[in-house]
Parts: sequence; structure tokens; C-alpha cells
Amino acid sequence: MRERIENIDLSIRKISEKAADQDDIVRFDIGQPSFDTPEHIKEAAKEGLENKQGYSPMLGIDELREAIAEEENGKIGYGPEGKEILKDHVMVTTGGMGALYAIFAARLGDDDKAVFNDPCWGPYKMISEVSENQWTQVQYWDEDRNLREEAKEEIAEADMVVVNTPSNPTGYVLTEEQAKEIGEFADEHDTFLISDEVYHRLTYGKEHYSPAAYACDSAIIGSVSKNHAMTGWRIGWIVDEEENIEQYAKVSRASTACPPRVSQYAAIEALQNDSHVEEMRETYEKRRDLLVERMNDLGWDFRAPEGAIYAFPEVGEDSWKFCMEMIEDGVAMVPGEPMGPESDQNIRICFGSTTAGEISLAFDKLEEKIQ
Amino acid sequence: MRERIENIDLSIRKISEKAADQDDIVRFDIGQPSFDTPEHIKEAAKEGLENKQGYSPMLGIDELREAIAEEENGKIGYGPEGKEILKDHVMVTTGGMGALYAIFAARLGDDDKAVFNDPCWGPYKMISEVSENQWTQVQYWDEDRNLREEAKEEIAEADMVVVNTPSNPTGYVLTEEQAKEIGEFADEHDTFLISDEVYHRLTYGKEHYSPAAYACDSAIIGSVSKNHAMTGWRIGWIVDEEENIEQYAKVSRASTACPPRVSQYAAIEALQNDSHVEEMRETYEKRRDLLVERMNDLGWDFRAPEGAIYAFPEVGEDSWKFCMEMIEDGVAMVPGEPMGPESDQNIRICFGSTTAGEISLAFDKLEEKIQ
Ligand SMILES: Cc1ncc(COP(=O)(O)O)c(C=O)c1O
Ligand SMILES: Cc1ncc(COP(=O)(O)O)c(C=O)c1O
Repeated sequence: MRERIENIDLSIRKISEKAADQDDIVRFDIGQPSFDTPEHIKEAAKEGLENKQGYSPMLGIDELREAIAEEENGKIGYGPEGKEILKDHVMVTTGGMGALYAIFAARLGDDDKAVFNDPCWGPYKMISEVSENQWTQVQYWDEDRNLREEAKEEIAEADMVVVNTPSNPTGYVLTEEQAKEIGEFADEHDTFLISDEVYHRLTYGKEHYSPAAYACDSAIIGSVSKNHAMTGWRIGWIVDEEENIEQYAKVSRASTACPPRVSQYAAIEALQNDSHVEEMRETYEKRRDLLVERMNDLGWDFRAPEGAIYAFPEVGEDSWKFCMEMIEDGVAMVPGEPMGPESDQNIRICFGSTTAGEISLAFDKLEEKIQ
Repeated sequence: MRERIENIDLSIRKISEKAADQDDIVRFDIGQPSFDTPEHIKEAAKEGLENKQGYSPMLGIDELREAIAEEENGKIGYGPEGKEILKDHVMVTTGGMGALYAIFAARLGDDDKAVFNDPCWGPYKMISEVSENQWTQVQYWDEDRNLREEAKEEIAEADMVVVNTPSNPTGYVLTEEQAKEIGEFADEHDTFLISDEVYHRLTYGKEHYSPAAYACDSAIIGSVSKNHAMTGWRIGWIVDEEENIEQYAKVSRASTACPPRVSQYAAIEALQNDSHVEEMRETYEKRRDLLVERMNDLGWDFRAPEGAIYAFPEVGEDSWKFCMEMIEDGVAMVPGEPMGPESDQNIRICFGSTTAGEISLAFDKLEEKIQ
């Protein structure tokens, strides 16, 4: 067995394993919508089953690639007045995860380096360990939303920079200026930019800006998982130049053959008839407001989430210790430590996976513990 | 972009692209059942949609893992009287492809070497190129079904040996003695053995024997794709020790997150109510008989397929030239050259994807061309 594989740290599993053993627990730890996939999407899957369920085309069913191109062209900076995205720029993958993996494995050799924000979504590191490249983490933004000098140094030197907006775990959403600054900076320094936008429909009073709109050498990662409550279907995508898609497709083929067919029919419906997104977004926004209120009451230090389904407050003590203790008191949260060296006193709370009632209950418990 | 990725040879695509441009063509080139997924399996998928479509457990839904363990225990050499396979030995993957990739990527570093039979299914090489390991090809068996000396040398030296029975592209099925010989030989030389058994239910008058039954350090690859006409669903599996599964799961997680949920409900039904397999097998067997008769009439040199859905006759001239010409005459077949250096005068004919009528028609055309 390869050493880097064996060394991959799965300590985060301790949280979910411990949480699963507990009765009466609020699961803030699971990064998954509380909603089920909307009924009309399931119906479309059923209709899709009337087709022969053979391998799908390597790059995905054309109708889905068209629908994705349309979705992407709806973003600010894309479409007729920006970067125009065509079907040929789209490759359907086995989830956003499959999309990320394909790019890492196609582009990065052993000595090539990717840069991640601190904090970042943990699996970026895991993907790097599996695809066997180098990686580093650095805080990208200062308090005034400017790119930090240290971040610039790392990005300038690296082969790839990953930007995630709206962000997991922080709920941070880049402004237009930020998207532009990091996009252009990567471009100037010939650092390939991956813009992970799997939460792009979930923002609260903010617009979504894509840094990839400002970087020639860049790819967008998308997914139906979070925006459409479709995590189990495993449909994501890459947007990039056709000649790059061709290379990513080799990784996708070798590791998955093709994306699942029935899920693609469901994804077409999700993108074409998408009023459910706004309904879910509104519910998430209400939960976020409640969460912000309750975190304020607790006196925690935090930024109010602007997007995605996560808050990332600082709790003023070791994040592992805090999380392990709170599970016993009935609240499961994820420690910040594995998400970056600067985050070892932060915790991640997913408000996408819990009802307002559960949020209230959990914070009653947190208040009891803390005050 | 990584050089080994860019260098991956996709020349085989020339066949399908050219074939797609042609009217009135018999598609012997597609490695896909002509059957659609049976109706009761689709119904089970629809019922499965009543569940919440969240991420599935990393290793797959328990009920499916149980069903796979039962399927595997039904093989000769397994179950109560052989190697007993438990749910914990099973990991569900995104197709047999995802299963193979997870093992290659978890086990083989840059300098580690895998051995493949000559000829072999092309994607083994592609998986190696993507996962960045070394590989070599050698003819495993002599005419008398004994392991060749050269094969022994390669296997003894290598880190991994891949055995595929029933075989794509040859339709060859190992006897008990062969399975034992290669399994025990790998075991003696501490070479990890992958037994690719994705066609194990499709044999014609032969029993299926698993070489992994004779090798301690080994994994079985399975899939619903071919046995159940379910290629589009993307469900396969690995059977191995629990501690190895844990390492493979890291690759699977990093490259796919988890297997698609709805497909798993379908796969449970496929394995639990499987009378459709024998019906399809009988049809394939009739097609095989017809194919053998027609190849005999042509005077080709071939072994009658004993399993899977392929024949691999020698055509006595350059396989590329032969295939490219025959496409123009309305028969698409795959050249043997990319499948191994010893096979550059062989062609692969898939009789799983074509009706008896199409087989007759194609051979009328071949006769015209050749005689
Ligand atoms: C930031 C980010 N990117 C990508 C993904 C991948 O999601 P999926 O593979 O389900 O599309 C996730 C899921 O949690 C995520 O949070
Ligand atoms: C020998 C062999 N192994 C594995 C596979 C993988 O099939 P799947 O990924 O559809 O399960 C195939 C498919 O053609 C095959 O022929």
C-alpha cells in the first residue's frame, strides 16, 4: 500500500462515529442538505429510466451538457456579455468530487503544488494525497478583503490555486473585487485556477462572482449536490477549454468510466426547472439568521455566513476538545483544526442539515455548557 | 498537464467515431449488452427513490454489501466451504472501473509494476497511466493451459498481477487448475493478485473459477454492468480484507465521494432476483454458437469463446487496416493491436451487443470481403 494513502488522516470520522452512537443529537457535522431531492426531479429520473441504461457518453449526455452551459452562462461575467460557455466546454463528472479529482490528477505531478485557503474544505488535501502532488495552505484574505502578501507569494509560486466561493467551511462569499483580484493575480503568474462554485446558488444578500471569469487558465467546478439537494446522485461538472476537457476525461474514464445515466436525467430536470432552489435558499437564509442571532447571544467571534450552508465561529479553545465534549452534550460539530493551521480554535456548524428547531435546541445546550 | 496523461493513446476512438458516421453498420465494437436493464430492476430503482437521496455510506449501502457477499460466496471456492466473504470484505464502487482504479491508486507508486496478460482489456493500461505506475504485458498461458515461464518471471518480479476470467477480449475462461496455478504462484511470490471477474455469470458450458480463491493477498473485482445489463448505473465492487478496503476507500472517496444511491437500490434487486441473468446468458450462448460457426466458415484461426461476450479471431493481416476497411463495408470491430503486442493480427468481436440477425449480416459482408 502506498505510504501517502496509508497516512491520510481520517480522524474527522471520530466525530460522525461518536455522533452516530448518541441518542438525541443535533447533527451540525453533516455537510448535507436536510431537504430531500424535490419530487419533480425524482419523476424525471423515473422517466429517464424508460431509456436504455447503457454507458453514457464519456463527457455526459448532450442535453445535460447544454443545460450546464446555460446555468454557467447565467453567472455574472459569463454568457453573451462575458466568457461564453458552450456545451463543448462542459464535462459531466461523478460529483464535484470527481471533477476536482480529474483536474488534480491530470495536471499535477509529484512535484507540482496546489495552494488552498486556510481554512479550506478538508477533502482538497485528501485529493492531493491520492493524486500525489504537493500542497500548501495560506490565508488568502485580510480583514479588508484584500489578497494577503503571503498568499500572493504562495500563489505566484504554485502550479494551481483553488478558490472556493461560497466557501465551505466559512460561508464566505467573494466580492467582485476579490474575484477579480485573485483571478487576475493567478493569471499574471500562470497559476492554474480552480474555482469551486458548488454552492453558487446559495448566497444570502450577496451576489456570486466567479474568479474564473478573470483568469484565462482556469476551470469552474459545479455540482447539483448542494444547490439542488442531490448529493446521492453523484453529478458534478468541469467547465474548461475543450482541449483540457479532453485530458481530464482520461482521468474520469480511468476512475469511473462515465457518470451514472439515470442521475443525468435527474440533473437535467434540476437545472431546467429550478424554482426549488430559491425555496430552499430562503429556508437556509432563515436558519442562518437564527444561527447568527444565537451565536451573537453566546458571544462567539464569527463572521456571519454570506453563502453556502456553514458557519465557522471561533470558540476560544481547542476545536477537537470542544467538539468531542459537545457531542456528549448532544451537539455534533466539526473541529476546525483539520481544515487549516489557523483554524484550530474554530468549529464548523452546518445549518443546511438541521431545522430551525434543532438549531434552537442545540444552542440551548451550548449556552448551558458555556455560560 | 501531466505528460503521461497527454500521452494516453485514444486511437481506439477512431473506430467508434468512424462507425458512428456510417449508416447500416453492425456494431461489434461496443462492449455493451444489447439488452436493456430488466424492468424489475428499474422498478426497484423507482422504489428506492422513495428514500432520501443523500450521500450513501462510503462503502455502499449495507443491504447491497450483504447481497454482494452472498453473490461472491456462491462462487466455487468461496462460502462456508471455502474463503468466507462477509459484508465487511465488500466495498461498493463506481463501477468495476472505480474498483480497479481504487486498488491501483492505493497500492502502486511510480516504481511499482503491474502485469497484464497479452492480450488484455485496454483500460488496464489507461488506469496505470493515470495512477502513474509501471506495467508490462506478457502472454500468461501456453496452448496446454499451463503458465508460461516468461509469465512466471514477470509475475514473480511484479507488485501486482491482474487476471481476468472470463476474459475480455478473448472469451477465455480459466480452468480450476489454471486458477489454482496462477493464484498459488502469485501467492508464493508475494505478488498481489487482482481477479477481474466482472463477467463471472457469463460462461458457456464451463464453470467459473476464481484465482483469488488460491491467493491470500488478492482482491476480486465485480460489477453489475455486464452480468445484469446495467452498464449505465455505475455499480461495481471490491472484495478484500477489511484493512485493505479501508485504504481503497480513501481513493474512492477522493475520486467519487461515494457510489450513486439510486443505482445501489437497483443493484440490490439485480443480485437478489437474478433469473434474468440466465435468460440473457442463454441468448449470448446462441449468438456465440452462430459466431463460431460463421468464423469456422471463414477459415479464421480462433478459440471458441468460453465466456464473456467476445471472440478474438486472428485475421492474418494488420488488425488496424482490417478494422478500418471493414467499417467501410459495414462491420465495426476493434483491432487487437492496442490490446497487446502479440495481438496485432487479431480483432475483437463483441457478440453481446448484437442480435443473431446482425451477426449473420455482418458475416455475409465479411465473407464477401475475404473470399
Ligand atoms: C467546497 C466543496 N466542493 C466540492 C464538494 C463536492 O460535492 P459533490 O461531490 O457531492 O458534488 C463539496 C461537498 O461537500 C464541497 O463542500
Ligand atoms: C474486463 C473488464 N473489467 C472491468 C470492466 C468495467 O466495467 P464497469 O466499470 O462498467 O463495471 C469491463 C468493462 O468493459 C471489463 O471488460
